[in-house]
Amino acid sequence: LVDPIAGIDEEAVNRASRADDILANAVVVPTLEEAIADCHWAVGTSARGRHIPWPLMSPRQCASHARQLVDAARSHSEEEQPQVALVFGRESRGLTNEELHLCHAHVHIPTVETFSSLNVAQAIQVLCYEMRLAALESVQEGNGELRWGVEWDHPPATHEQVNGMIHHMEQTLVDIGFLDPNTPKQLMTRLRRLYQRAAPDRMEINMLRGMLSAIQRLVKTTDSNNLRK
Amino acid sequence: LVDPIAGIDEEAVNRASRADDILANAVVVPTLEEAIADCHWAVGTSARGRHIPWPLMSPRQCASHARQLVDAARSHSEEEQPQVALVFGRESRGLTNEELHLCHAHVHIPTVETFSSLNVAQAIQVLCYEMRLAALESVQEGNGELRWGVEWDHPPATHEQVNGMIHHMEQTLVDIGFLDPNTPKQLMTRLRRLYQRAAPDRMEINMLRGMLSAIQRLVKTTDSNNLRK
Repeated sequence: LVDPIAGIDEEAVNRASRADDILANAVVVPTLEEAIADCHWAVGTSARGRHIPWPLMSPRQCASHARQLVDAARSHSEEEQPQVALVFGRESRGLTNEELHLCHAHVHIPTVETFSSLNVAQAIQVLCYEMRLAALESVQEGNGELRWGVEWDHPPATHEQVNGMIHHMEQTLVDIGFLDPNTPKQLMTRLRRLYQRAAPDRMEINMLRGMLSAIQRLVKTTDSNNLRK
Repeated sequence: LVDPIAGIDEEAVNRASRADDILANAVVVPTLEEAIADCHWAVGTSARGRHIPWPLMSPRQCASHARQLVDAARSHSEEEQPQVALVFGRESRGLTNEELHLCHAHVHIPTVETFSSLNVAQAIQVLCYEMRLAALESVQEGNGELRWGVEWDHPPATHEQVNGMIHHMEQTLVDIGFLDPNTPKQLMTRLRRLYQRAAPDRMEINMLRGMLSAIQRLVKTTDSNNLRK
């Protein structure tokens, strides 16, 4: 629960019927970024037609992808099991663009054009239903399909690790004078979309950060040379 | 609506958000038998384990069957179009055995064993979602095209364009001293895998190449400074 209006009070417990355990285990955090920090794949619910196109999935594709992520990591240790986040917005106005940009993909529940927005409880029901079906299929198939046909050699990066790399890239682009921090941030949004889409593993994140650090060292050398002149 | 407790009053209109037309067209009858009198196929929502086994379907099978009934009758006149009824029970205790026996089949939404009963609004959402998907499939098969994705704003990069960017990156990494051209090329293989997986569009390739060129200009500045020393 990200910065919720209502607390987990008596009304919440009454409304949960007998699902008190869900409420008891709910974690409240101030920002979405903290909520998904340890997640490997986050998908946000969205109506169509955002300014910058983002990978868009149906609920079924979303559940299938989540299932493949989990199946592909079966041999990994418990701490390396991929964490998937379904991100739902406010009842009144859904997720903001900034929140949606933190998600790897967006999911859209097909509705009639004239009535495109569902109650959040209804949207959650549809996504949970598809997740449940995917989990049941996974159990039934037993062996599980692998994501890219092979067991991956490195565990997937968490949201926090990808985010860290993107912030490192942003700073590096400022350092080399490619990005003006005062201009609109479409560049960073597009780069974020690109790297999130690739769902990097930890080794890839380390490689990218190594490259960024090498560039930053170069900038420092240049700067100190210029000072010496 | 079969013998409802509540009328279609102000509260009902408020709760319907903007779906007043559904309420306005609602028909109230005293018995389920009258409600489904002109229907060709009725399916009732039910938890598992009735006394007498009945044809039991998943929501998806149910939607697929309904769609086939409708598709098969495309050439029929309007009065001969098959009418399908989804029958939902009371919030408190669902449908009675007698009511379920009036249905051609029963539909069960897969849930965890310990929490098998959904709110009626949630059950309706799941069934309507599957019905909507089935209807869309029907339309899309007519067009011969499935279209889930968004319209992307830039065309996908060709293999040649992605390749060109990767070679540009390789040269840049050599220029900044990060990549030794004499060592094994696992770095480039992993970078290639990462970028190919993301399937970049042309704009993204241009952005990446712009960044690479900026880094190369920086290297040239450093080198000429070093020469001048």
